[in-house]
Amino acid sequence: MHAETTARLLIRCPDKPGIVAAVSNFFYNHGANITALDQYSTDPEGGTFFMRLEFQTPHLDLSRPLLERTFGEAVAARYAMEWRLSYAAEPKKMAILVSKYDHALLELLWRWQRGDLHADVAMVVSNHPDLRDAVEAFGVPYRLVPVTRDAKAEAEAQMLDLFQDTIDVIVLARYMQILTSDFVDRYPDRIINIHHSFLPSFVGAGPYRQAYDRGVKLIGATAHYVTADLDQGPIIEQDVIRVSHRHTVADLKALGQDIERTVLARAVTWHLEDRIIVHENKTVAFS
Amino acid sequence: MHAETTARLLIRCPDKPGIVAAVSNFFYNHGANITALDQYSTDPEGGTFFMRLEFQTPHLDLSRPLLERTFGEAVAARYAMEWRLSYAAEPKKMAILVSKYDHALLELLWRWQRGDLHADVAMVVSNHPDLRDAVEAFGVPYRLVPVTRDAKAEAEAQMLDLFQDTIDVIVLARYMQILTSDFVDRYPDRIINIHHSFLPSFVGAGPYRQAYDRGVKLIGATAHYVTADLDQGPIIEQDVIRVSHRHTVADLKALGQDIERTVLARAVTWHLEDRIIVHENKTVAFS
Amino acid sequence: MHAETTARLLIRCPDKPGIVAAVSNFFYNHGANITALDQYSTDPEGGTFFMRLEFQTPHLDLSRPLLERTFGEAVAARYAMEWRLSYAAEPKKMAILVSKYDHALLELLWRWQRGDLHADVAMVVSNHPDLRDAVEAFGVPYRLVPVTRDAKAEAEAQMLDLFQDTIDVIVLARYMQILTSDFVDRYPDRIINIHHSFLPSFVGAGPYRQAYDRGVKLIGATAHYVTADLDQGPIIEQDVIRVSHRHTVADLKALGQDIERTVLARAVTWHLEDRIIVHENKTVAFS
Amino acid sequence: MHAETTARLLIRCPDKPGIVAAVSNFFYNHGANITALDQYSTDPEGGTFFMRLEFQTPHLDLSRPLLERTFGEAVAARYAMEWRLSYAAEPKKMAILVSKYDHALLELLWRWQRGDLHADVAMVVSNHPDLRDAVEAFGVPYRLVPVTRDAKAEAEAQMLDLFQDTIDVIVLARYMQILTSDFVDRYPDRIINIHHSFLPSFVGAGPYRQAYDRGVKLIGATAHYVTADLDQGPIIEQDVIRVSHRHTVADLKALGQDIERTVLARAVTWHLEDRIIVHENKTVAFS
Repeated sequence: MHAETTARLLIRCPDKPGIVAAVSNFFYNHGANITALDQYSTDPEGGTFFMRLEFQTPHLDLSRPLLERTFGEAVAARYAMEWRLSYAAEPKKMAILVSKYDHALLELLWRWQRGDLHADVAMVVSNHPDLRDAVEAFGVPYRLVPVTRDAKAEAEAQMLDLFQDTIDVIVLARYMQILTSDFVDRYPDRIINIHHSFLPSFVGAGPYRQAYDRGVKLIGATAHYVTADLDQGPIIEQDVIRVSHRHTVADLKALGQDIERTVLARAVTWHLEDRIIVHENKTVAFS
Repeated sequence: MHAETTARLLIRCPDKPGIVAAVSNFFYNHGANITALDQYSTDPEGGTFFMRLEFQTPHLDLSRPLLERTFGEAVAARYAMEWRLSYAAEPKKMAILVSKYDHALLELLWRWQRGDLHADVAMVVSNHPDLRDAVEAFGVPYRLVPVTRDAKAEAEAQMLDLFQDTIDVIVLARYMQILTSDFVDRYPDRIINIHHSFLPSFVGAGPYRQAYDRGVKLIGATAHYVTADLDQGPIIEQDVIRVSHRHTVADLKALGQDIERTVLARAVTWHLEDRIIVHENKTVAFS
Repeated sequence: MHAETTARLLIRCPDKPGIVAAVSNFFYNHGANITALDQYSTDPEGGTFFMRLEFQTPHLDLSRPLLERTFGEAVAARYAMEWRLSYAAEPKKMAILVSKYDHALLELLWRWQRGDLHADVAMVVSNHPDLRDAVEAFGVPYRLVPVTRDAKAEAEAQMLDLFQDTIDVIVLARYMQILTSDFVDRYPDRIINIHHSFLPSFVGAGPYRQAYDRGVKLIGATAHYVTADLDQGPIIEQDVIRVSHRHTVADLKALGQDIERTVLARAVTWHLEDRIIVHENKTVAFS
Repeated sequence: MHAETTARLLIRCPDKPGIVAAVSNFFYNHGANITALDQYSTDPEGGTFFMRLEFQTPHLDLSRPLLERTFGEAVAARYAMEWRLSYAAEPKKMAILVSKYDHALLELLWRWQRGDLHADVAMVVSNHPDLRDAVEAFGVPYRLVPVTRDAKAEAEAQMLDLFQDTIDVIVLARYMQILTSDFVDRYPDRIINIHHSFLPSFVGAGPYRQAYDRGVKLIGATAHYVTADLDQGPIIEQDVIRVSHRHTVADLKALGQDIERTVLARAVTWHLEDRIIVHENKTVAFS
């Protein structure tokens, strides 16, 4: 809506009485108008507290740097908060990694083009040349970074070089290479993958084949943050679609791709709007 | 969870900066531990603000009457709030009205019996004798109040007499009589009906027949507060189920009854947990 | 799958014993291998019978013209069948009509491009120039046919001229002009529209606004064949998505567009695969 | 519908041209009126063929025994069919096994009582006394068969004794004992279990706890035939419901029980209506 004036605060801290009052007081006293507030506690007695605050900045009586410093000292320190302030006017820089399947990628680019994904799509990186034209038609740079089994480290180094420390979030839109722990560790809770099954069912390769073999009656897709453990990262969003004995593996793949598109688009949207907080390999999703 | 110590506050007022801070401060300062907070504004500039607060009472420094008086004077008056405090330890008194279909009624009684519906089910009132045994098996009194076309007023008077001003919420679990405006006006936003269609499609009688004739591919059910306008009251919850050309009207009725059960159970649960606020013939549902 | 060798038969006739035997005998005796068979009767006693047969043609002992003539004389005449044979190798010629919204159009073109829509997309016709580039990027001709209130007949004549009697199916992918009865009558059960509501709720203009005002908890979309009565034609497919009080009209529109895309894509796919039979303003959908 | 006159034929055999014609001819020639026909082939070239035929018996020109013998000799033998004829007028005898949870059991009994489950519910067997009153209120015998770790074989022998070879289908409505292979092997494809997860996720004990720990965004339930491998049998039906970080393990359990009820009811209904054929640890479900 008011992209120029919207700010968001994400908080995680040990739960204690008074946090909501302290935070809302602080922002009220400094002229912020709170337009959304979500909070959650794993346990009011000794649990972990999470909060997302969306507010409008026009009447703030502090500059952004001062606001952050004051909040840090006056509120966050008192409650031992981990916190992050972000401004809709400074959209996250996003890189999309893809191999050959275009469905998840095009869904993101199409939503981005029409203004529904509030990101700065800096580039698409692929280990294959196939999707160059499709990507460049959106005015987005396409970077080819081939990956070979023996030169994975080099390929990742090349990607980091392209990113130049400016990338805030990486989306794996059916990128068929496994990233190394070294790479993943540089972007904690900032790499989003779409896995083509309803995790934890059917981890690893060929999930549609696995689903077919098991004879499930629903297939699904899972968007999750990437961690060093393959397909084990915190789940952001999942959805399913009904299938039957009539569907071949190819049918499952085609049907599943529709779910992959939807699920990934939701997860990326929520991440960009600072709606997701990771906690102990799970997500708190204020969606 | 902690039924003895949980209290809930529902607020509606003109939106202004500072409401969240004022409310959370008040409860924090008086020793309440906030365990859930939902808020919504139709428009931060001049709209209407809604809030639901759930808190624990053990460390309150005020008695309930004093808490309510103090909150009313110190906070509510300043923001022109309409508000309501309720205590989980004082469950709402509920009357269920039913005719001959048992599905919606039994779903409620079964959930109530296992402790999932936090109400005091005072009685079931019916215009037919059929369901007496089924109801009494749950230990709930069954009151027969026949209704004839010419004596509707007498029947309603008889019901009001049974209720003796002690009933907080009335659930129409497929009660096939239309209540008069006089009756409805006594219980604003406190009579919940289940309509057997996805409103506003198929208002009035025979919605499954109407759905069949129109050839819809999904049928649904709608729980709504009853107003003087038939089937026009604020919608609390809706859901649908897929159907096909193979289904007869009888099939639609059987399938639809499953949805009616689910939708009504959710709506009643939310009402009992003070999750619904009515505003301009719509509901704000903090579900 | 085997696009070159797949044929499909659609039948509608008065139900009588022996139809399935007669049809399956005929095709078996002439060397067709039946790969799918769906049938439905509104009532085995005096109702209407519907059947869809999919078979493989390689071992047919008759040429196509002879097959059709022989079936017509030997089987169809006996049971007073309305019937239609089609061959996957001769995909239907499709024209897509669109105004300014691109979502439904692009969904169809994208699925067509990847081979999931078995049609020959002959052209996109629009009353606005906006989507020319997007369409031409798919290699599909874009025809601009402006429509003014006073010259609707001329515009439709211009479209018919473009179609040159070669178009088998017309898809209204959010085409915001109402077609005249004259035009509609030329394409009975062959014009598919996507309406942006869960019909019969919210007919006419502004359904998302209507849905917002009514406060429904699910919004939907409906694909239907176009008849002379606006929004009253036989429903092919519908689906819904959950919404809440937090959603603005703009949110409903954005969420709804996802459902429009899905529902229209399914309806068009089924039509192209000869899975839909219209009967008394309803559809039999062998999907 | 016409319970007295409805018969059903289930077939499995190697696929070959002419099966549909042969079967439909046979029944047509002997006066059966086919009211439903479903068929499926894993592969028209050398695959397995499945068929379900529903027909009306009033005008049959053969007695049941003769019909079966003639069909076996004239049709089934020629195509090497495994087949089964059943008559709606002879409902399957069903035993329900349960431990302490009542939700799945009561859902079945309630549907059965209102005539939606076409079975003869012979008895409920439990290893606990808790649900006796609830069951006997439906007029169904309740048999207590305690199970101890050391005397499982005796308990199963006691159950077999109760069944006296008259039970056609056994439903495990949250029966918390693992049956031995010996027992399971006596009822191939005739024991239906409801597992409280979306299999193959979360096999074994405590699936709601497992789901909570993994942080999934949907939980589910799975009805499957019981085989010697725990939770690995052919899946009949599955469904899911959306959950969030706000849900505790207890919440997941409560929400999941609603899905368990629905999924088990569907699976049992389809089994009773002879809609399920098992093939290579998967099911063909003509539902």
